[in-house]
Amino acid sequence: MTNIATLPAPRNAWYLGAWSNEVTEKPLARTILDENVVLYRQPGSKAAVLEDRCSHRATPLSLGDVTDRGLQCGYHGLTFNSKGECVFIPGQESIPPQACVRSYPVVERQGFVWIWTGDPEQADANHPTLIDYPWNDDTENWPTHYGYMHIKCNYMLLNDNLMDLTHIPFIHRRTIGGGNQMGQVNAEMKTRKTPTGVHYIRWMDKIQPPPTYVKAAGFAADAKVDRWQEFEYIAPITVLQWTGALESGRGARENREQDGGFQLRIYHGATPETDSSCHYFFTCNNGCTTQSEADNDRLFREIRDTFLEDLEFLENQQACLEDDPTRALVDIKHDTARIHARRTIDRMLAEEEGHLAVAAS
Amino acid sequence: MTNIATLPAPRNAWYLGAWSNEVTEKPLARTILDENVVLYRQPGSKAAVLEDRCSHRATPLSLGDVTDRGLQCGYHGLTFNSKGECVFIPGQESIPPQACVRSYPVVERQGFVWIWTGDPEQADANHPTLIDYPWNDDTENWPTHYGYMHIKCNYMLLNDNLMDLTHIPFIHRRTIGGGNQMGQVNAEMKTRKTPTGVHYIRWMDKIQPPPTYVKAAGFAADAKVDRWQEFEYIAPITVLQWTGALESGRGARENREQDGGFQLRIYHGATPETDSSCHYFFTCNNGCTTQSEADNDRLFREIRDTFLEDLEFLENQQACLEDDPTRALVDIKHDTARIHARRTIDRMLAEEEGHLAVAAS
Amino acid sequence: MTNIATLPAPRNAWYLGAWSNEVTEKPLARTILDENVVLYRQPGSKAAVLEDRCSHRATPLSLGDVTDRGLQCGYHGLTFNSKGECVFIPGQESIPPQACVRSYPVVERQGFVWIWTGDPEQADANHPTLIDYPWNDDTENWPTHYGYMHIKCNYMLLNDNLMDLTHIPFIHRRTIGGGNQMGQVNAEMKTRKTPTGVHYIRWMDKIQPPPTYVKAAGFAADAKVDRWQEFEYIAPITVLQWTGALESGRGARENREQDGGFQLRIYHGATPETDSSCHYFFTCNNGCTTQSEADNDRLFREIRDTFLEDLEFLENQQACLEDDPTRALVDIKHDTARIHARRTIDRMLAEEEGHLAVAAS
Repeated sequence: MTNIATLPAPRNAWYLGAWSNEVTEKPLARTILDENVVLYRQPGSKAAVLEDRCSHRATPLSLGDVTDRGLQCGYHGLTFNSKGECVFIPGQESIPPQACVRSYPVVERQGFVWIWTGDPEQADANHPTLIDYPWNDDTENWPTHYGYMHIKCNYMLLNDNLMDLTHIPFIHRRTIGGGNQMGQVNAEMKTRKTPTGVHYIRWMDKIQPPPTYVKAAGFAADAKVDRWQEFEYIAPITVLQWTGALESGRGARENREQDGGFQLRIYHGATPETDSSCHYFFTCNNGCTTQSEADNDRLFREIRDTFLEDLEFLENQQACLEDDPTRALVDIKHDTARIHARRTIDRMLAEEEGHLAVAAS
Repeated sequence: MTNIATLPAPRNAWYLGAWSNEVTEKPLARTILDENVVLYRQPGSKAAVLEDRCSHRATPLSLGDVTDRGLQCGYHGLTFNSKGECVFIPGQESIPPQACVRSYPVVERQGFVWIWTGDPEQADANHPTLIDYPWNDDTENWPTHYGYMHIKCNYMLLNDNLMDLTHIPFIHRRTIGGGNQMGQVNAEMKTRKTPTGVHYIRWMDKIQPPPTYVKAAGFAADAKVDRWQEFEYIAPITVLQWTGALESGRGARENREQDGGFQLRIYHGATPETDSSCHYFFTCNNGCTTQSEADNDRLFREIRDTFLEDLEFLENQQACLEDDPTRALVDIKHDTARIHARRTIDRMLAEEEGHLAVAAS
Repeated sequence: MTNIATLPAPRNAWYLGAWSNEVTEKPLARTILDENVVLYRQPGSKAAVLEDRCSHRATPLSLGDVTDRGLQCGYHGLTFNSKGECVFIPGQESIPPQACVRSYPVVERQGFVWIWTGDPEQADANHPTLIDYPWNDDTENWPTHYGYMHIKCNYMLLNDNLMDLTHIPFIHRRTIGGGNQMGQVNAEMKTRKTPTGVHYIRWMDKIQPPPTYVKAAGFAADAKVDRWQEFEYIAPITVLQWTGALESGRGARENREQDGGFQLRIYHGATPETDSSCHYFFTCNNGCTTQSEADNDRLFREIRDTFLEDLEFLENQQACLEDDPTRALVDIKHDTARIHARRTIDRMLAEEEGHLAVAAS
């Protein structure tokens, strides 16, 4: 039976390795899909990613320094360029070719540093796992905050979480999910499979807006709003969130891109660290442009605090699954989108295994 | 050879899962014999015990809330009654029978919450492992304190400790075991096997009472007392202690239940958590009814501090045993009661294995 | 392939178990080559070393007390002499011979407590692994400080570190290795194999003395010195260091033992704890006898701080090696002495294995 506690991740995919603002001249060590890498940046250059292990004595390169020549090992000074080639060995003229280290294909754009973890020959900037997220670049209209959390759970548990929002009135019952529990559970929900995952939208019409929305959008005290929650999962790690509300009668269902309501976009990406832990990257792109910087900061902190409530459940769920990882679970009605997401991953894994089998035969 | 570091425990037995006062509307997670359970209480009801894992997505139920319907999972709201039946799935009418979770037979009385960890069909309120301990209910005459410690050792190492009191002048040499070391070692000792374990009583006649006793019972400065230490092991986890002293000449050997001396009962129960850790539950029932509440508190704190001295040895002993768990040990004369206790457990384990073998054939 | 992360150590050798001043009447627990031992001292006697496990109930003897009779177990009072013989069992006349514990051959001299971890029959006070280090006894001319660090790396990684000083301008680039990086890398280096390891000496002629040297030896502001770094590795754990400088023209190459320059001897010994951790013992014997005690203290602290910089690299290198312990590394020119040191150990291990094979056949 499948070990649902430690689902693997497809290797031939782009994974979010860091936010651009994390990658500087001070090398950053991170483990992605069980591989230790070091991310760094030559001044004025794009991010570079190498394996975090010097070819000479196996010291982490992340303990070294960025120099003019490249990333210099902090132990005996061997230096590597962004292709992983060894370009300098102190006290020695000739450089043996086996002194190189592995480098990773990288695409840096829109605030994301994407790393290709599979066969470098197949790294393709048009691959569907490389996400276009223009809102990070449109900070006039979508002021952006970048968030990061380390979570001790398999990456798919976070995707599962985002594929079933009926968790909100339970996990978040003491915060954003307070109030009418069953009203939130029974929101209208439309789910459709996509070639790369699953898409759903939930509508709650003519409801009282939640306090966060009132504060952000300035709805009147007795206003009723039409509220939406649109989520798209793009395998393996991306969930695009667009949530918001407009006063009822303004035609939210026909056109959500109107001024004067509440508008929030969130990028969610849970990059596997090991098979039982992940890096959770998220943005908060606030579309309520009337808000001050302080308002934006507060909204971001509220969102982060909400995610910490999820984190507590996810880490405990992981531990519970590991105790008996092949024991069956019981699906319920609200698992539909979650099941589509899982099937997408299962398909990607099967395809990758098929390719490997063909390559090996 | 037997692995003496990680002796298993018989499953068909009652184990002390918690003190009654620990079980409230706020669910309590605990691991008993390697099983994760959640203990909770509906207002005004007896304690209930379920496995701590929701059937839907394997989240610990202990992260949820007690509601009118039962224990509600904090992730997506599935709700279970005290039999483990799923009684509510948000947004769904029909409830599949496989959505149930395991429930455990429970007996709650005299301040104890007893859990049956074996075959539920065999759970029997007359089973000898369910202990009668009336002193907890007689708080007029035996004011009671409840104690708990987590100890990283196999449960039998604690029973071993209590079966050989010659450890007192050594482990407790800086506290209650100070003074005449060999006098304490050479106390008169009578040991007898019982159907459920072993019983012994130690007498020290015409000795100077220890400071704790003087303080509690108000013995005269030059008083000599006859002091007893009576212990009964009832497999697998119970040790009943009755210790005390009367002024010499008052006939302690004929009748220990006289006013005016020192009287202390302690319930000891080391419920296995894993095979290398246990929950140590203990009471302090002080029979010196002339003492104030502050005196009782102080006595309890002194006892707890003494047990912390044992804990240091037990955890180090466990680590030492694990380094070479099948290496032989050397028995000495004072191991007699300890050996009887071990044999009782060995017999219970062999019987249980025999039943299982018969059932499987 | 060899697992280079966890190289074993020869057992038939003397290992530095403690500094003499660490061994007192308060027993000291330490793990040496994966064996748990207890070191203690009867008042006025030499250090004794026993296995740290009572034969009775497997409690660590290090939790006990030194008594007139010997080391007494803190649990039930069994007592052992320095040969490991059980000499006392409370409450029991006869002592079974199997109650003894293992004792270790010990040589204590010059501030070192040497332990023989192999076959006791072969323990030989003339064995080349027992080092003569007279400077610790000559505190008039060589004021001595004793240092200790626990490092989570295989012992040979520390020896590797000391066999290639080109690490100094890199690991210590922010402290003692600052300044002319390539000047330090390209110092003249003479390496020769010895029957017990390897010896090398590095010379830097007519250079500006480093600040530490100026401070200690009082060199003039514009002085040029001839500086040497002499290191000898004596397998398995010893590295003898003698470093110093004299004003150029005073003939340092012909005679280094002149007054008025900088003189420092360091004993380095990395005794294996487990195959992935070691005890790093080091002395600082300052030959600049004009210095005050406060100067000596400061020099020792500076050296210790430098070693903490090494420690960070060594522990990270160990972790990196463990991730893929058989993956090949790339040797460079400056690895010559390191490779000789490794080969000495490989030879000792092969010899020991050969003896064992002969003994078993």
